[in-house]
Amino acid sequence: MTVSVVITARPSYARVKTAIQALHTRDVDVNIVCAASTLLDRYGRVADVIKKDFRCEVTELWSTYEGATRETSAKETGTLLSECASHFARVKPDAAVVIADRHEVLAPAMAAAYQHIPLVHLQGGEHSGSIDNRVRHAITQLADAHCVATLDAQDYVKRILPGATVWLTGCPSIDLAGGIDQDDCVTLEELGGRGDPMDLSQPFLVVLQHTDTRVESNAFDMLSTLTACEASGYPTICFWPGEDADADSVSKQMRTFNPAIPFRTVRNLPPERFLKLLTQASCLVGNSSVGIRECAFLGVPVVNIGLRQERRERASNVLDIPTFDVRAIQFAIAQHATRTFASSPLYGLPGSGDLVAHAITQTVLTHRAAKQRTYVA
Amino acid sequence: MTVSVVITARPSYARVKTAIQALHTRDVDVNIVCAASTLLDRYGRVADVIKKDFRCEVTELWSTYEGATRETSAKETGTLLSECASHFARVKPDAAVVIADRHEVLAPAMAAAYQHIPLVHLQGGEHSGSIDNRVRHAITQLADAHCVATLDAQDYVKRILPGATVWLTGCPSIDLAGGIDQDDCVTLEELGGRGDPMDLSQPFLVVLQHTDTRVESNAFDMLSTLTACEASGYPTICFWPGEDADADSVSKQMRTFNPAIPFRTVRNLPPERFLKLLTQASCLVGNSSVGIRECAFLGVPVVNIGLRQERRERASNVLDIPTFDVRAIQFAIAQHATRTFASSPLYGLPGSGDLVAHAITQTVLTHRAAKQRTYVA
Amino acid sequence: MTVSVVITARPSYARVKTAIQALHTRDVDVNIVCAASTLLDRYGRVADVIKKDFRCEVTELWSTYEGATRETSAKETGTLLSECASHFARVKPDAAVVIADRHEVLAPAMAAAYQHIPLVHLQGGEHSGSIDNRVRHAITQLADAHCVATLDAQDYVKRILPGATVWLTGCPSIDLAGGIDQDDCVTLEELGGRGDPMDLSQPFLVVLQHTDTRVESNAFDMLSTLTACEASGYPTICFWPGEDADADSVSKQMRTFNPAIPFRTVRNLPPERFLKLLTQASCLVGNSSVGIRECAFLGVPVVNIGLRQERRERASNVLDIPTFDVRAIQFAIAQHATRTFASSPLYGLPGSGDLVAHAITQTVLTHRAAKQRTYVA
Amino acid sequence: MTVSVVITARPSYARVKTAIQALHTRDVDVNIVCAASTLLDRYGRVADVIKKDFRCEVTELWSTYEGATRETSAKETGTLLSECASHFARVKPDAAVVIADRHEVLAPAMAAAYQHIPLVHLQGGEHSGSIDNRVRHAITQLADAHCVATLDAQDYVKRILPGATVWLTGCPSIDLAGGIDQDDCVTLEELGGRGDPMDLSQPFLVVLQHTDTRVESNAFDMLSTLTACEASGYPTICFWPGEDADADSVSKQMRTFNPAIPFRTVRNLPPERFLKLLTQASCLVGNSSVGIRECAFLGVPVVNIGLRQERRERASNVLDIPTFDVRAIQFAIAQHATRTFASSPLYGLPGSGDLVAHAITQTVLTHRAAKQRTYVA
Repeated sequence: MTVSVVITARPSYARVKTAIQALHTRDVDVNIVCAASTLLDRYGRVADVIKKDFRCEVTELWSTYEGATRETSAKETGTLLSECASHFARVKPDAAVVIADRHEVLAPAMAAAYQHIPLVHLQGGEHSGSIDNRVRHAITQLADAHCVATLDAQDYVKRILPGATVWLTGCPSIDLAGGIDQDDCVTLEELGGRGDPMDLSQPFLVVLQHTDTRVESNAFDMLSTLTACEASGYPTICFWPGEDADADSVSKQMRTFNPAIPFRTVRNLPPERFLKLLTQASCLVGNSSVGIRECAFLGVPVVNIGLRQERRERASNVLDIPTFDVRAIQFAIAQHATRTFASSPLYGLPGSGDLVAHAITQTVLTHRAAKQRTYVA
Repeated sequence: MTVSVVITARPSYARVKTAIQALHTRDVDVNIVCAASTLLDRYGRVADVIKKDFRCEVTELWSTYEGATRETSAKETGTLLSECASHFARVKPDAAVVIADRHEVLAPAMAAAYQHIPLVHLQGGEHSGSIDNRVRHAITQLADAHCVATLDAQDYVKRILPGATVWLTGCPSIDLAGGIDQDDCVTLEELGGRGDPMDLSQPFLVVLQHTDTRVESNAFDMLSTLTACEASGYPTICFWPGEDADADSVSKQMRTFNPAIPFRTVRNLPPERFLKLLTQASCLVGNSSVGIRECAFLGVPVVNIGLRQERRERASNVLDIPTFDVRAIQFAIAQHATRTFASSPLYGLPGSGDLVAHAITQTVLTHRAAKQRTYVA
Repeated sequence: MTVSVVITARPSYARVKTAIQALHTRDVDVNIVCAASTLLDRYGRVADVIKKDFRCEVTELWSTYEGATRETSAKETGTLLSECASHFARVKPDAAVVIADRHEVLAPAMAAAYQHIPLVHLQGGEHSGSIDNRVRHAITQLADAHCVATLDAQDYVKRILPGATVWLTGCPSIDLAGGIDQDDCVTLEELGGRGDPMDLSQPFLVVLQHTDTRVESNAFDMLSTLTACEASGYPTICFWPGEDADADSVSKQMRTFNPAIPFRTVRNLPPERFLKLLTQASCLVGNSSVGIRECAFLGVPVVNIGLRQERRERASNVLDIPTFDVRAIQFAIAQHATRTFASSPLYGLPGSGDLVAHAITQTVLTHRAAKQRTYVA
Repeated sequence: MTVSVVITARPSYARVKTAIQALHTRDVDVNIVCAASTLLDRYGRVADVIKKDFRCEVTELWSTYEGATRETSAKETGTLLSECASHFARVKPDAAVVIADRHEVLAPAMAAAYQHIPLVHLQGGEHSGSIDNRVRHAITQLADAHCVATLDAQDYVKRILPGATVWLTGCPSIDLAGGIDQDDCVTLEELGGRGDPMDLSQPFLVVLQHTDTRVESNAFDMLSTLTACEASGYPTICFWPGEDADADSVSKQMRTFNPAIPFRTVRNLPPERFLKLLTQASCLVGNSSVGIRECAFLGVPVVNIGLRQERRERASNVLDIPTFDVRAIQFAIAQHATRTFASSPLYGLPGSGDLVAHAITQTVLTHRAAKQRTYVA
C-alpha cells in the first residue's frame, strides 16, 4: 500500500508527523512530497528535517514564486497543481493525504480528486478567517475521507456532506505536545536567530503573527503587536510569518523594529522544540492557529489578535482582541501573561497520529473494495 | 463597473448568455474570457460565436491539453489557474463570474478568490455524479455570491454557508428555451455533421452522452446507448461529448458506429438552435444536464442513463435508467419517446438572465461598500 | 550510467531507435522520456510502440495543447520545459539526448543545459526552413556534444562552435532503412487508415506534407499538392502532418478531399514499415525530411515542394518544386515517379546507431573526468 | 508601430533605457514588459523605477521562483515562456526586443520567434562563461535582427548567420555612462544599504560578483573576494548578486561577513547613480559584465576574477585573476586600485540608444514589406 503525504509548510509537518510514524509501523509505503515553502532555506528547509527524521528520500516539487502577492499565491498554486498531477500519475498512490488549509493545499487536493485517487483531508471542518477558510472547506468538498480534530468540525463536515466518512481523530500535533520533555528547555543558543541576548528561564513573550489575506494593513498590524509587546516590558521573540501574500512587508517590519526591550527574530525551530519554547513563554501573542490548537493542550496563555482565527473553537487559554489596538493588546498581555491554564482536550489527546493512520489505511481498503464494482469513487 | 465572465464550454455559454445581455443594458463593462474548449475548432469555436453575438473582443486563454485523460484534466486546470491569475491582476475586475461545475472552472474561481475579487457562481448547490459534483461544491465554498437555479440548490448553499448571499435566479438558459421560434425548424442542412440523410420533420432521437470521470467503461456505455437507439428503430443524431477525461474514446465509438438506422454525428449547434432541435426530437437520450434543466422547461421527453446526473432534481419529463443495459434503454425509449409533457418551472422561468445581472451588480456594490471598512472580503 | 533520451514525435523515434538499442548493449541504463505527440492517440501513441519495442517503462510528460497555433507551440514548450526540469532534477541522468529540431525540443535541451547535465544533440548543423531551422541551431548552442549526419552539418557546427565535440555519425534512421525486409510488403490491411481500396503492388504515391510555420497558406498548399496528385492519376496515400502550428487546417483539407483517384488517409505506421511502404511507392510527394534523409539511402524518388527543406543537402533522388503550383507539381510527378535511383550515403550508412551510442557514452565519461576539476561544464 | 521591450533584470534596463527614449522620440508605441527580478523588492523593484522614468504603465509578468537553484532557473524560464506567449498573442507587437543573456531571456525570445514576431536581440555575439554564454548564442539563432556592441561580436554573428541583419550599435548603457554628472557624487545617504558608515570622498572598493552556474563554490568564492578586500584595507561596498542559481548562498556569505574594514551591503541603485558610484570608487572587484563594458568607457580600474567573463573582449582597465585566490586578488587590488585609465570606445560611444532605435524601426519596416509576400519571416 502506497500513500502520498503532501507537506507544504512547517506547521503542516507538525500536524502529520506522528501519523507518518504510525503509517510506517503499519508497513505502509509512505511517499512524502515536500512542496512550497518546505524547500526554502528562508523557512528552515523543513524537507531536510523530514529526511533526517525518517531517514528517507522525499519528492521535491518546487512551486513558490518569489514576491508573495495575492497574484503569486494563485499562480504558484496553479504550478503546483500541474506538478502534483504529474507526480500522482507517475506514482499512482493508493491514497493522497493533505493537511489543513494553506492556499497551495488545494493543488494536491485537486490533483488527487481529478484522478480519483482517494483523498484524505486532515483538519477539515474548522472555521477561521483569511482565504484559508474558503480553501479548507473547498478541500473538504473534494475529499473522500476526513480526519477532523474537534466535535464541531465533525458536525460541520457531516452537515455539508451527509453520508461522508468522517473520523474524529484529533490533531496529530497534540502527540508532539504530549511528548514534550519536561526538563530539556530551549536555550538561547538552540533558539538562534538574530537580535538581543535574553534569559529564557525568565518571563518572555513569543510572537507569531501571519498575514490575513483579506486586509491591506498586515505590516501595520505587526507594528501594533510589537509596539504592545515593547510596552509590556517583556523580552520578546518574534517568529517569521508563513509564506502568504504580503508576508514580505510583515517580515520587513520585523527586521526594522528596534525596541527598548530585548528583542529577537527567529526563522524556524523543529516542531517539538517550538512547542517546548511555548511552554517556557509567559504568553503567545499573534494570530497563529498554534495558539488555538497546540496551546489549548499545553495550557499556554494566548493573546489572539484580529480576525484570522475568527470562529475557530478555542479553549479558555485564549484571550481574543478583535482589532490591532496597541493599548488593548498591551492590556491583554499584562492580564493574561501571568495566568496558568489546565490542559484542554479540545483539539485531541495524544494518540491522534495513530487514529489518523488507521483512517488512512481504512480509506484505502474501502476504495479497493469499491473499485471491484463499476464506479471507482 | 467591470465584470469578468469566464466561459469554458459550449453549454456554459447557453447558461450565461442572457445574463451578459442584461449586464450590457445596465452599462456594465463586461470582459468576456473564453478559455478551454471554447477556443477549439473541434468544439465549434464558441469564442467566435460569442464575438459575433456581442460584436465584441474576448480575452482568449488557451489551456486545453490534447489527450483528455484524468491527468491532463488536472494539469490544464493548473495552467488555466496561472493564466486567470495574471489576467485578473491585469484587468482588476470588480467581480468575476463563473458558471457551473466543469473541472477547469475551479481555476478562474480560485484565481478570483485568492485575489479577493468578488466571485459570483452560477448554478451552485445542485447535485450530480462525476467529478463535477465535487468541483461545483468546492466553487461554492470559494464564492462570495451564489445565483442558484432551484429551491433545493438554495437550501443546500444556505446549509453549508449560513449567512451567505444566495440569489434564486433560475438558470439563464431557460431564457433561451423560452425564446425559441415556434416555426423556424432546424433543417438537415443547418444541422450539418456527418452521416446519413434524414427527415427532421419525422420522429428521431438525439443522443448527448458525456463521460463520467468515475467510470472506466465510458466508450462501452456509449456503444450500449447507440445500440439501444438502433434497436428502437428511430433515426438518431448523436452529438459529440464535452472535453472531459476519456472523451476521445467515446468519440471514437461514435465515429465507428455503423448502424442499420439513419445515423448522424454532429459537433455543435448554436445554443438556441440546439434547443429548437430538441423540441423537434421525439426524445433526448444520454446523460446531459440539458435533459434535466432546459428539457424540463421545454417538456421534451428524456431518457437519462447512468449516475452522471444522480441526485439532481428532475421534472416528470425525465425517465431514469440507472445502468447502461441495452434492453432497459431500448424499452425506455419505446415507452417514453411518444409521450408529451407540460413545461416545468423547476429550473426557472424566462427572465433569469436579468435576475443574474441584478445579483452581479449588487454584489459589486456591496463589496465596494465593505471595502471602505478594513476587511476587503 | 543513466542516459535520458527525450522523444517528442514519431519521426524522432525512427532517428534514435537503433542508438537506444546500442546503448542497451553497452549496459547503459536508458531512461526514455515520451513527451508531446508521442502520447497522443491521434499520432499513433508512439509511446506504446516504444514500450513494446524495448519491453520497458517510459516516463510520460504530457504537454501538447489542443488547437495547434503558433501561440500554443510556444506555450506547450514552456510547459514541457518545466516538466523536464523537474524530471531531470529527480532522475539526475549522466547525459540527456535530444533529437533534431521540432519546436518543443528546445524544452528538454534547456532543462538539461540549465542544470549542467551533459546534453547530446542528434542531427544538428543541418539547414531547413520553418521555425525548425532556428530551433535546431539554438539547440546546437546549448549542447555539449553533437552527433551530426552529414559533412556539411559537421562543418557548420564546427564553424559556430570552434573546439566543440562533433561526431560524424550519420542518422540512425538509416539503420532502419538498411534493415528493411526486401519481401515483406506492406498490405492494405496493415496500412489501415480510411478511404478507398487500392492495390499496393501497383504504382501509387505517398504524400507527407507538414506545415511551414512561416506561411499562412498551409491548408491551401495541401490542396494544391493533392490536386496535382489527382491530376497525375496515381492512387494516393496521404499521411497526417506532424503536430505543428496550423496542422489542424491541413488535416481538415485532407479529410474533405474527395478526388477521382483512389485516395486514403493514414495516421501512422511503425517506422520500419513506413520506410518499407516508401520503397513500394512510385514517389514520395510533400516536404518531409524523410524524403531528404531516409529516401536518399533508399533511392526513392521524391518531389519536394516549397521552402520547408530549403538549404538542406539532398541526393539526386530529390526533385525540388519551389512553390505550390499544381501544374508544376503534376509535371514533376509525371517525370520523377518512373525513375530509379541508387542508394546515397549522404545521411549515413547502417551502423549509425552504434556510433551515436559510442558518442553518448564518451560524452558522459569526458564530463565525469572534467567534473573532478572545479568547473562542471 | 508597437514594439514590446522585455526587461528581466536591473542591468538589462541600463542597457536599453536610452533606446526606449529614442523609440519614444520616433513616436513608437513602446510596450514595456517587466518580468522576473524586476518585480521583486529584493532587487529594488526596477519596474517601479521604469514606471517613474517613463511615466507609463508596464506589463508585469511574474515568474521568479523562490529558492534560485539550477532547477528553478529552468522552471521559471518555462513559466515565463508561457506568459510571454500569451502576452504577445494579445498585444501583437510589430517587434519584440530582448536584451543580453540571462537564463530567463530565452523565454521572450522563443515566445516571439515561435509566433514569427520580428525579434531584435541586443548584445549578441559576445563571449563569456556561465550558462549565459549558451543562452546568448541560442537567442542569436532565434533572432531576426542583431544590435551588437563590438566589432568582434559583429564578426561572430555574421559568421554563424551569414546574411543576417547585424547592426553595430554599441551598448546603450554607454549613453548613461556618457551622461554622468561630473559633480553630483553619490552620498552615503543616497547609497543606503546596511553596514558601517564610510566617507565616499575617500578611496573605497565596490564589489559586484555574480554566481557562475557552472561552479559549486560560489559562496566560497565570494568569501575569498571579500577576504581579499579586507586584507587590502579599503572600505568596501558590496552589491547583491543577480537572481541566478546559487545566489542565495552568496547573499548569505555577504550578510554574515564581518570584516575589520568598514563594510556595507547594498541591494540596488538606479543605473546612472550606480555608474557614478563606480567613478568615485578606486576599483571595481568581482566578475560583472559592468566591469568589462561600462567601466571600459568610464576608465574605472576593474579586478575581474574567475571565468564568468572568459573570452569577453576587454579594454586595458581590466586586470584578470583567473582563480579565486585571496592573495592574488589582494595583490591585484593593491596594484590596480591606484591606476587611472583613458576612456575606451570598445563597447560603444554615446548615441548608441539612438542607433538601436533606428535598427528596431527598420526591422519592423523590413518585415512589413516582406509580409506582403508569401513568407512571413
